[in-house]
Amino acid sequence: MTPHTEWLRRALLATALTVAGPALAADDGKVANFLLDNGMEVVVIPDHRAPIVTHMVWYKIGSADEPPGKSGIAHFFEHLMFKATTNHAAGEFDRAISDIGGSNNAFTSYDYTAFHETVTPSALEQMMRFEADRMRNLILTDEVIKTERDVILEERRSRIDSNPEAVLDEEVDATLWQNQPYRIPVIGWMQEMEQLNRTDAVAFYDKYYRPNNAVLIVAGDVEPDAVKALAEKTYGKVARGPDLPPRIRPVEPEQNTRRTVTLTDGRVSVPSFSTQWVVPSYHTAKPGEAEALDLLGEILGGGSRSRLYQQLVVKQGIASGTGAFFQGTMLDATNFTVYGAPRGDAKLSDVEAAVDAEIARIVKDGVTADELEKAKARYIRALIFARDKQDEMANLYGAELATGGNVKDIEEWPDRIRKVTADEIKAVAARYLLLDRSTTGYLLPQQQAGN
Amino acid sequence: MTPHTEWLRRALLATALTVAGPALAADDGKVANFLLDNGMEVVVIPDHRAPIVTHMVWYKIGSADEPPGKSGIAHFFEHLMFKATTNHAAGEFDRAISDIGGSNNAFTSYDYTAFHETVTPSALEQMMRFEADRMRNLILTDEVIKTERDVILEERRSRIDSNPEAVLDEEVDATLWQNQPYRIPVIGWMQEMEQLNRTDAVAFYDKYYRPNNAVLIVAGDVEPDAVKALAEKTYGKVARGPDLPPRIRPVEPEQNTRRTVTLTDGRVSVPSFSTQWVVPSYHTAKPGEAEALDLLGEILGGGSRSRLYQQLVVKQGIASGTGAFFQGTMLDATNFTVYGAPRGDAKLSDVEAAVDAEIARIVKDGVTADELEKAKARYIRALIFARDKQDEMANLYGAELATGGNVKDIEEWPDRIRKVTADEIKAVAARYLLLDRSTTGYLLPQQQAGN
Repeated sequence: MTPHTEWLRRALLATALTVAGPALAADDGKVANFLLDNGMEVVVIPDHRAPIVTHMVWYKIGSADEPPGKSGIAHFFEHLMFKATTNHAAGEFDRAISDIGGSNNAFTSYDYTAFHETVTPSALEQMMRFEADRMRNLILTDEVIKTERDVILEERRSRIDSNPEAVLDEEVDATLWQNQPYRIPVIGWMQEMEQLNRTDAVAFYDKYYRPNNAVLIVAGDVEPDAVKALAEKTYGKVARGPDLPPRIRPVEPEQNTRRTVTLTDGRVSVPSFSTQWVVPSYHTAKPGEAEALDLLGEILGGGSRSRLYQQLVVKQGIASGTGAFFQGTMLDATNFTVYGAPRGDAKLSDVEAAVDAEIARIVKDGVTADELEKAKARYIRALIFARDKQDEMANLYGAELATGGNVKDIEEWPDRIRKVTADEIKAVAARYLLLDRSTTGYLLPQQQAGN
Repeated sequence: MTPHTEWLRRALLATALTVAGPALAADDGKVANFLLDNGMEVVVIPDHRAPIVTHMVWYKIGSADEPPGKSGIAHFFEHLMFKATTNHAAGEFDRAISDIGGSNNAFTSYDYTAFHETVTPSALEQMMRFEADRMRNLILTDEVIKTERDVILEERRSRIDSNPEAVLDEEVDATLWQNQPYRIPVIGWMQEMEQLNRTDAVAFYDKYYRPNNAVLIVAGDVEPDAVKALAEKTYGKVARGPDLPPRIRPVEPEQNTRRTVTLTDGRVSVPSFSTQWVVPSYHTAKPGEAEALDLLGEILGGGSRSRLYQQLVVKQGIASGTGAFFQGTMLDATNFTVYGAPRGDAKLSDVEAAVDAEIARIVKDGVTADELEKAKARYIRALIFARDKQDEMANLYGAELATGGNVKDIEEWPDRIRKVTADEIKAVAARYLLLDRSTTGYLLPQQQAGN
């Protein structure tokens, strides 16, 4: 679950933003939130600073919802959504966007699959028509499946199998998670991707690509009433699908061991490590715990003011990089991660010991009132910057709503962050960051084998 | 997948026998093999040395077939099979057996669930009537479910959660296997066992407890024709169930890393380790590979004549125990394991290094013609002893047929073992026993933490 590959980086934008700072609505309007008659949820975030609009559809289906043995089908389906429909040839949607100078993309993560376009407001209805069309009208022939399957297989070869860091990450994830489906790579296991077929794709499409399993986010130079009217004209015409069962997935048993996963590879030049723990997400945590984990990540390793950076990079000069992060916006339990790599003559084991020492110091002595206030301030500042980025704002709402949250959760987020106490941060560190119950990945150059 | 708990030990009897030596039929009759009209497979192994008969029903359903999030239901169902049916009160079957001086038991493994009774031949029809009755006529009330669920939860607490070795084994299995369902414990994860309910149980029963998903093994002082007539009178009356799809389960991706799992616990007195590799089983291997792995296990660590024992226990005197084994009789890919524990002042790391050295020696230099012949001879000798044990013979056939094999596979087994060459053994060692792609579990006493 570390963002080393492009589709993951795209997927984790929303999560990264959550780490950086939860948002208020954009400056100039109240966020509107309503349901269409067919069950599709809509969020409109007015933002009139520039004549652009970000249009996103989030499906509440991610890799962690895949049937056993069908890994990769959620991401595969993201690709298939760019194919021909009964109304439009393949590529027509993309060309329509580029013709008007817009941009578009899509991403798949553990909990959701999302499609987005940024265009002038006058093109919003057209975007909705295209997006509503491909929600139900894809033409899934064997030929389409075979061609696009070759594309995802090649994507896996180039992004994972030829990248030692990505290979290690996969096996670390599958070691950290022993039951919960986040252990399965978003792109899928090669031997299962090779078997994905038309029957699988059609079943997946019919089950999950439905208005009642989707969230529409429109952020930009628009008014909620106008968006609602357009949404009813376009998405509103798509028939509701069968009700889906609650997204109750296998959960993780208690971890009782310390686990390591080591990849030694000639292509690695600098050794590195990362240690992860299973921790609650915003969706599974008791009140205040996820907020405390967010601030713990910020204080321990959230940038150049953090303890890890100051101690290992600035003061001791032993690390070329180090940090910590918490991926809070997930449907199920998530991970807290620390990482580091040595600089100069320093050994990887020195860096790891220094990281462990910083964790132990927080577990024992907690954090100071001053650094807590500064961490909260950085959080709020990041939020102000986030307001400037319409697509990040849209991402934030989409990811939250696709992982069991709601608009109110986002609006109240800053206040919940402000309420976190130093004791709560010490408590989550002491409760979760136990080395005897951690999972560490080591990436080693060939000559360091055995280190 | 190491046999530390009773139900696993019971389940692995068949596997252990496979390691000890594959069997011919019992001395005095040809093995009969036929299907009833409802699809139930029958194997009769005549053995007239004593007036007893072993009666077993094997269902081709094990923990690795369980739906996601329902771990433990196969083993739970083994328990439920001893409850009341529409024709018999709970306990009546057990009492009928003990009244005639017979014995009975049941076990659940990854690939199958089996029920067996050993009685006088005159009671065979009665056993069949009881067994055929509970195949379809269990009364599964909420009360029955609740009571027996408490029993399996207590079984988990006492056998796993209060036993550091068992806790470690679970997390090692879930680290070795990152996709294939052997990573899930047979008894189930506690949080999922707690949720097993009547709906789950009824669905499981209706799907899997059917004559066309069962194998009847009768070994003993009986004739095939008579057994066939009795089977038709009893099991033959049970309606065939819906056809089940092929047992195609998620398979393991290639392992690229070295993994470790360490449990440090105050209750541990002597440290120990075991290292495992994913290897093909008799059901998944290319011709000859599984036989070579069986003999590799025998030569490397199959008892007091093995290299590991002779080198580490006898010659160096550093190990209190060491060995190797291959669990060949599995439906999917399986594991090859080496293990060791230090003696006296020796360190665990010394024992591990010495085990690794013995593996490296076989990978580099292979095995000698002499030790290969002796290993084959031990295999054959074990087979002769196995013939003396009617229930082990029945187990062997049951396990083989429940994991994709057939009677011919068993009959030809000794010849396939005889054909293995020294080169083939060196080749499987070199191909599979790579330390950079292994998974090691360490069980450490508290004071040795960090060793």
